[in-house]
Amino acid sequence: MTLYFITGNKNKFNEVKHFLGEVEQLEIDLPEIQSINPKEIVEAKLKEALKHKDGSFIIEDTSLYLSCLKGLPGPLIKWFLATIGRKGLFEIADKFSIYDAEAKTIIGYARNQNEISFFEGVIKGTIVEPKHDSDFGWDPIFQPEGYSKTFAEMTKEEKTKISMRGQALKKLKEFLIKRDLR
Amino acid sequence: MTLYFITGNKNKFNEVKHFLGEVEQLEIDLPEIQSINPKEIVEAKLKEALKHKDGSFIIEDTSLYLSCLKGLPGPLIKWFLATIGRKGLFEIADKFSIYDAEAKTIIGYARNQNEISFFEGVIKGTIVEPKHDSDFGWDPIFQPEGYSKTFAEMTKEEKTKISMRGQALKKLKEFLIKRDLR
Repeated sequence: MTLYFITGNKNKFNEVKHFLGEVEQLEIDLPEIQSINPKEIVEAKLKEALKHKDGSFIIEDTSLYLSCLKGLPGPLIKWFLATIGRKGLFEIADKFSIYDAEAKTIIGYARNQNEISFFEGVIKGTIVEPKHDSDFGWDPIFQPEGYSKTFAEMTKEEKTKISMRGQALKKLKEFLIKRDLR
Repeated sequence: MTLYFITGNKNKFNEVKHFLGEVEQLEIDLPEIQSINPKEIVEAKLKEALKHKDGSFIIEDTSLYLSCLKGLPGPLIKWFLATIGRKGLFEIADKFSIYDAEAKTIIGYARNQNEISFFEGVIKGTIVEPKHDSDFGWDPIFQPEGYSKTFAEMTKEEKTKISMRGQALKKLKEFLIKRDLR
């Protein structure tokens, strides 16, 4: 059974492909429910996908959680980027002088309606002034704990090794191998 | 043909009933798409509603737009209230010393898929420290321009007379009368 990664983001697909090997990109436009719980969002999308096509599916949500905003923006990050942008996010942290943040990836995997599994990866860090441009929206303002550079300043290899997406993908890969699903 | 106002909020229903007279409350759980464009959200819900039931429908979105957040939270207001709360919204405005805000209501009216009409009401104001409790989430921090009290401190009559929801409802009522739809 083909494993599809549902995403419109080529960069994310390449990162996942690099990890999992046999996976195909599937670009379908699934409605995104409004929630600040990423698992709910991913689960709703997987259930929609299962209605459309045979196969097994993965969907990921990577969100940024700011301490000064008590967990916002979370999955609402894209709307923050579209309005106040990276610089605006830094300015809020700066006004409060509270810079801690968490980057979290949730990967949902489904073969049928009744079996959805989640895999999580988290990395702590701080919000800094935008440094270096990037295809990944908030990489230029996120500096992982223990590092003196932002995600945007790292090579793809450096980032993948420590990233929240890498952690979640490792767990998914172990799960698939153990269950002999690939 | 019965006119239904789709809402789970009894307070909002009473305000609309007071204005329109013949309208029934319909509580159905329609999925809310993620967007910062309230018209898109309202339109998607109306199209869902039309699939479920015969009748004509109204759905409203009332959102708060902060200048210091370049238009956020908008329709994402409920997630801001659920995380940082009224006090948190005030604190952000206070940290930036930019207190201007707009409260906007969009009412969507539909009789069939191809004819959706929108009615808008806007009121300018400032974000103040939470004053007086209220059933309406952010009424205690919104002080309309030209007034020295917040929405939460006004009587229902005072508020309805000037409110963004009142303005939009007036436009809807004129439309319905003109088209002889009620």
